[in-house]
Amino acid sequence: MDMPTLVDIQAAADRIQPYIHRTPVLTSSSINRMVNAQVFFKCENFQKAGAFKFRGACNAILSLSPEEAAHGVATHSSGNHAASLSLAAQMRGLQAFIVMPRTAPAVKKAAVAGYGGQAVFCEPTLAAREAALADVVAQTGATVIHPYNDQRVIAGQGTAALELLDEVPDLDILMAPVGGGGLLAGTALAVAGVSPQTRVIAAEPEGADDACRSLKEGRIMPSVNPTTIADGLLTSLGTLTFPIIQQHVDQIVTVSDAAIIIAMRHIWERMKIVVEPSAAVVLGAVFERKIDLTGQRLGLILSGGNVDLDRLPWASPKSLTVTH
Amino acid sequence: MDMPTLVDIQAAADRIQPYIHRTPVLTSSSINRMVNAQVFFKCENFQKAGAFKFRGACNAILSLSPEEAAHGVATHSSGNHAASLSLAAQMRGLQAFIVMPRTAPAVKKAAVAGYGGQAVFCEPTLAAREAALADVVAQTGATVIHPYNDQRVIAGQGTAALELLDEVPDLDILMAPVGGGGLLAGTALAVAGVSPQTRVIAAEPEGADDACRSLKEGRIMPSVNPTTIADGLLTSLGTLTFPIIQQHVDQIVTVSDAAIIIAMRHIWERMKIVVEPSAAVVLGAVFERKIDLTGQRLGLILSGGNVDLDRLPWASPKSLTVTH
Repeated sequence: MDMPTLVDIQAAADRIQPYIHRTPVLTSSSINRMVNAQVFFKCENFQKAGAFKFRGACNAILSLSPEEAAHGVATHSSGNHAASLSLAAQMRGLQAFIVMPRTAPAVKKAAVAGYGGQAVFCEPTLAAREAALADVVAQTGATVIHPYNDQRVIAGQGTAALELLDEVPDLDILMAPVGGGGLLAGTALAVAGVSPQTRVIAAEPEGADDACRSLKEGRIMPSVNPTTIADGLLTSLGTLTFPIIQQHVDQIVTVSDAAIIIAMRHIWERMKIVVEPSAAVVLGAVFERKIDLTGQRLGLILSGGNVDLDRLPWASPKSLTVTH
Repeated sequence: MDMPTLVDIQAAADRIQPYIHRTPVLTSSSINRMVNAQVFFKCENFQKAGAFKFRGACNAILSLSPEEAAHGVATHSSGNHAASLSLAAQMRGLQAFIVMPRTAPAVKKAAVAGYGGQAVFCEPTLAAREAALADVVAQTGATVIHPYNDQRVIAGQGTAALELLDEVPDLDILMAPVGGGGLLAGTALAVAGVSPQTRVIAAEPEGADDACRSLKEGRIMPSVNPTTIADGLLTSLGTLTFPIIQQHVDQIVTVSDAAIIIAMRHIWERMKIVVEPSAAVVLGAVFERKIDLTGQRLGLILSGGNVDLDRLPWASPKSLTVTH
């Protein structure tokens, strides 16, 4: 598969524009004072299905030929990609087959079902998941839409940065979280194309630091038993996202779970918006002062807002003991 | 004190415009589908100090003569009015003396202190509170700014509806919560002035239904031991707010705490914004279908977003048992 370019991102932006939300860019004077910088939050928690993932899913779905579309799409995921792909498929009137472990949380199963996705349950192992997906494809002829290692998906995710740079053109730094690297790769390509003087910095949980290690080693270093509150960032980089990140990302910083929780709570309390832990990682990196930001104009992509309100990280006695 | 008019609200809007946020109007297609109406949420949870109360406090502070201003302002409150008055006073460089019970939650004491207000603690009785306020005024010459029974405050609160009607001119219904009636009176005056065909409907917790009873009886019926999760709506109507409400409000509906909690959670989950229980009362009324809304264009004022994230209503085993 070819590496996507700025042209692909711009084409994606045109293609998905009638279907997505152009999400707002928010600022907080108290956070600006606190970190001594100007921070612009691109609020993808307000995106349809609650996360930036809808952009990539939507672009992939709209890029299918009528013949491909007739057979539907398939993926394995139980998170935001699953919900987003289900909704995007529903909007084009297609079937979406979502392979997910039987053990997935009820709230995630409900999200997929609510958007019309057809769940295909499997045992919670990588082998079972891949076998189940192969089965679905063999039976239905559905097109597999990978959560991040897909040119159409990367191009779609890059449209968030394109919108942000259109609204706030002269950013010194743009930060995005990194899991599989779809958002980060799309963001980095968009920045390289329209605002090359802007530095791209990724934030990653300490307990899932495969992207940071991969960049150091010069090859993909997969996650082994990652553990972090940021459950959207557990995956490893892909063969398509890694080279883009190598070429266009300036730095990857790691963030403690304690800082992620503090940043998440701070965003809820001060900005009055609901973001998920994976979204708060970028502000966590700022709070941990991993980079010098004094006087800088800083864009942060808040990636999503899908949280189980019955399991907030600060509600458990354990997480209440974190200090910072 | 004279009854405020549309002219006062318009003057307030001009006066406070450089200091307040023009808050966004949000919509949710899933809520529209669910209630079979078009709902426009005026998001005062994004207002400075986290609630519409900043509008009234700001208008009152900016209306003071230099002589009055020199002596500062005083009030008794431990909620959003206290925090808002502190911040508005700080912005004009004035002192704000906030009489509050010793027993007020730490989070509310911290809000006042954080905005530079000077807390004056008293015993948690009405008599002690009034005596403490009289003492402060005698010692400092501060001007008392009542949380709602004040023309300048009512005019300031009315600016939220003015902004909403400017952005969404043809509303069939505009709903606001009612506690002391400052927001409701200001809203009703604004509607009567610029959009008289719009019906004004107030929502009130069942456990604090003094406004509903007052309207029925034709005189102020004070709250007696009100109990509701909507802690911003415990107060009774004032001598200035009641006649405005009598004249300009079409209907007051009461809402169960169960519906308030469900509406609050729904707003957090679907709209990804943080609102307090008192703000969710309006959507609670819609969910309980107290009024026929089919096909209507409906404005809802979401009054504020100040919540203690360690004490969410759905986190307690008791509130988890509510059904609807």
